[in-house]
Amino acid sequence: MAVEMGSILAKSMGLKITSDHTSVASINLFVALLCACIIIGHLLEENRWMNESITALAIGLCTGVVILLTTGGKSSHLLVFSEELFFIYLLPPIIFNAGFQVKKKQFFRNFMTIMLFGAIGTLISFGIISLGAVHFFEKMNIGSLELGDYLAIGAIFSATDSVCTLQVLNQDETPLLYSLVFGEGVVNDATSVVLFNAIQSFDLSNINSSIAWQFIGSFLYLFITSTLLGVFTGLISAYIIKRLYFGRHSTDREVALMMLMAYFSYMLAELFYLSGILTVFFCGIVMSHYTWHNVTESSRVTTKHAFATLSFVAEIFIFLYVGMDALDIEKWRVISNSPGKSIGVSSILLVLVLVGRAAFVFPLSFLSNLTKKTPLEEINIKQQVTIWWAGLMRGAVSMALAYNQFTRSGHTQLRGNAMMITSTITVVLFSTTVFGLMTKPLIRILLPSSSHMNTATGSMMSSEPSSPKSLTAPLLVNAEDPEADTGDQNVPRPTSLRMLLSTPSHTVHHYWRRFDDAFMRPVFGGRGFVPFVPGSPTEQDELQWH
Amino acid sequence: MAVEMGSILAKSMGLKITSDHTSVASINLFVALLCACIIIGHLLEENRWMNESITALAIGLCTGVVILLTTGGKSSHLLVFSEELFFIYLLPPIIFNAGFQVKKKQFFRNFMTIMLFGAIGTLISFGIISLGAVHFFEKMNIGSLELGDYLAIGAIFSATDSVCTLQVLNQDETPLLYSLVFGEGVVNDATSVVLFNAIQSFDLSNINSSIAWQFIGSFLYLFITSTLLGVFTGLISAYIIKRLYFGRHSTDREVALMMLMAYFSYMLAELFYLSGILTVFFCGIVMSHYTWHNVTESSRVTTKHAFATLSFVAEIFIFLYVGMDALDIEKWRVISNSPGKSIGVSSILLVLVLVGRAAFVFPLSFLSNLTKKTPLEEINIKQQVTIWWAGLMRGAVSMALAYNQFTRSGHTQLRGNAMMITSTITVVLFSTTVFGLMTKPLIRILLPSSSHMNTATGSMMSSEPSSPKSLTAPLLVNAEDPEADTGDQNVPRPTSLRMLLSTPSHTVHHYWRRFDDAFMRPVFGGRGFVPFVPGSPTEQDELQWH
Repeated sequence: MAVEMGSILAKSMGLKITSDHTSVASINLFVALLCACIIIGHLLEENRWMNESITALAIGLCTGVVILLTTGGKSSHLLVFSEELFFIYLLPPIIFNAGFQVKKKQFFRNFMTIMLFGAIGTLISFGIISLGAVHFFEKMNIGSLELGDYLAIGAIFSATDSVCTLQVLNQDETPLLYSLVFGEGVVNDATSVVLFNAIQSFDLSNINSSIAWQFIGSFLYLFITSTLLGVFTGLISAYIIKRLYFGRHSTDREVALMMLMAYFSYMLAELFYLSGILTVFFCGIVMSHYTWHNVTESSRVTTKHAFATLSFVAEIFIFLYVGMDALDIEKWRVISNSPGKSIGVSSILLVLVLVGRAAFVFPLSFLSNLTKKTPLEEINIKQQVTIWWAGLMRGAVSMALAYNQFTRSGHTQLRGNAMMITSTITVVLFSTTVFGLMTKPLIRILLPSSSHMNTATGSMMSSEPSSPKSLTAPLLVNAEDPEADTGDQNVPRPTSLRMLLSTPSHTVHHYWRRFDDAFMRPVFGGRGFVPFVPGSPTEQDELQWH
Repeated sequence: MAVEMGSILAKSMGLKITSDHTSVASINLFVALLCACIIIGHLLEENRWMNESITALAIGLCTGVVILLTTGGKSSHLLVFSEELFFIYLLPPIIFNAGFQVKKKQFFRNFMTIMLFGAIGTLISFGIISLGAVHFFEKMNIGSLELGDYLAIGAIFSATDSVCTLQVLNQDETPLLYSLVFGEGVVNDATSVVLFNAIQSFDLSNINSSIAWQFIGSFLYLFITSTLLGVFTGLISAYIIKRLYFGRHSTDREVALMMLMAYFSYMLAELFYLSGILTVFFCGIVMSHYTWHNVTESSRVTTKHAFATLSFVAEIFIFLYVGMDALDIEKWRVISNSPGKSIGVSSILLVLVLVGRAAFVFPLSFLSNLTKKTPLEEINIKQQVTIWWAGLMRGAVSMALAYNQFTRSGHTQLRGNAMMITSTITVVLFSTTVFGLMTKPLIRILLPSSSHMNTATGSMMSSEPSSPKSLTAPLLVNAEDPEADTGDQNVPRPTSLRMLLSTPSHTVHHYWRRFDDAFMRPVFGGRGFVPFVPGSPTEQDELQWH
């Protein structure tokens, strides 16, 4: 019985099943390592260099080494990165939680800049990396790579690691940077995936201008429909919970429904070939704005922490997994006769990543600053450097895309393909550890204003903004509104025409608030429109049937 | 991209993958149906017959019919019950939550009776069903069944459905019955699985007395080691969280660690071929007694509701799944030429289940009553009937065991095997719906004292004991201690020797409390020994390093 149980998880984790009991052992190993990562991460909390991702990566690498040594180099296929596991189980909770806990006002105020960075920036980075790859790799004779492969390399290495960014930047300390870098990361993920799909599906033999238009059209279609789908699913969940008033019977139903609806939005997007990442992100935003206010007090605490916990575990899982997968010996064996060439390819890719990102962060920041009226709102040079640096990490999305491109139809044995897989792993490991380790000190040097908070808080998970308070604050403070904004008092209300013209985004926000209060909140609930008033059952019935 | 994402979940759900995009569609269908079940279950809350399980089964059946009709009977393998999915993902959260939310005092006070019912009772039931099967089926010429198959039938139909029981009985209304029937269910699950493994592994060609002893020995070993493993894992989690004081940095870490440790205990038991069900149940009890008190207030609310929600979703998933799987047309085709025989087999099995359960509930209740000193503590005849009836449901454990026995090495096409699979499905569907539908009215007739609470509350999930309060109670009341016992005031303290002799279980409890307060709680935390005192950081540091 027990022997046969583990096979499925094993399959979805890409374990090669020599014996079924081995896979139960693997699950045990994985769960134990996850626990170890949490505990060690907690102990290293005060450390000024480390963060949870790097700890998990390091533990994963160490475990890989131990497995390799104990099995005498035989277990080359014990763990192979599985993009299915990543895209179906691990990514949705992370992105949903990011949307659920993001400071919405900051995010929407910088919406145009985020779009500029995420869409145009990614295209620039893609172009530079692709051209660079063609330029350098054709001379190096690293194996048979076609035009599609070079373009894929561009898409693979344009995908920043939003998960790692979440760990490095802090929403409370540097709200502007956080919203810019993270928002860009979400849009960037979507752009990379669209690019990648376009490369795999478009006919590349006859490139003409119509393909470019097709691509732009498909991107806009994808972006708009994905966003609308997310917003729609979020609103549906808010409406159902408000209308049926689940809390009357069971808070578990509310929590279950919120979780399922969020996941449903992601899978629905995948069903329609849209960007699940964008959909689930906007679903999270809508849910925190409406649905979250319609549920009972305990459901609020539960969802806030349960979503953060799921996201937290998924993040650690990814890094642990990438770390363990990096030592799959078979991939390295193919390129072992030319170690110099492999190092060369990885170095070139790293340089291209650095250049490609610099090529859009600084010009686009300049463009974005032109639209700002006050110097305070501009992105200064130090912030630009931070944005550039914080988005250099490449992570699981790159890995997933690389595996998809270079291990399709069993071509792993081809020298060019093996080279690209190992180079991707090298770039991911190097950028996550080295760039990641240097980000915290860099931010401390560049943006000293943020150092007034202690470093322990600085390294905290962004998904847990109220954690420091949980030490002494009572429960109700802890269960604070996830949309509570620190920047609230900075928003000037447009009282005159001059203000109206000088602060367009604030005006948009003002009209949105009026629309929200007049039409959306009465229907979908939200702060101030909750159907449930504690201690007054009559009122609540009236509101419910209003 | 999107096309390839669904294949793994599809595999683990036993979907036959014709196209990868089909499996994304299947996941969507499943998530949508889960949402529908929750909403319809909520709307039927006040109904006096229905419960969530039957709703889910019905929806599953309807969906199966729709799929069958739309595909013109082709999709015979769209959904096949997968025991891996059941045992690795769905069962652990349900059983853990049951242990986490069970009223511990009631459970341990009736420990001997529960063991009597769960172990001896299951053996009696197993014997009767096996003998009955040999007696009736050998005459019926239903195909080639060996001795091992008959014994397996006994084990399969001795496994009661503890999940369905949780839905029908209510912990607050009938605490004694709940703890007896549910406790029995957990031990029964373990006994059935041990029996089943014993049948599959022991050499049945030469039965002698040593096999019986071997079996008893293996059961005792399994029960004791599984329990100890669960207790040990629970204590470790309590110790780690108390010692390292996770709440200081992040409540998410606490919640993540509790979840992972609970799952770890289950998988560890599977690794050592023990009973994961028993292990995770006792892990839940220990965690609610120690670990739960060591975490922050928000972690307490979160874990309480998150575990209940996971369990709730897993329960619905199982019933939905069983309902959809029931219409797999291929199994029915094999036996379609002898419908009368199939109905005969199912009827005989149902009668055997009824008789087998009656054969141990009434005699063992009589035995158990002999040990009780006061008539108030005895199980009266009405309660005995309720216990008999509430344990008649057969569910997913029976399904999983039947699939394991009768579809091994692709023998589904054999007539005897197909007959047993379809009969199992019939018994499960019939017992869950018919017996399940009649349980609530039966309890209302037999135990009218429980009807002073309204029926809506009566049909609530047991995992949510404080739900009715959540309507008006403030958050802190809602986050009440899961070990708060209604029976607390009924426990007389042994003040004299007479009392000591007359109430042995209370004495055991008294000494346990003293031991707990003197040795266990100072080390592992627990009520009154939490390391964290709000508002006094000095004290808490002292306590932490005490």
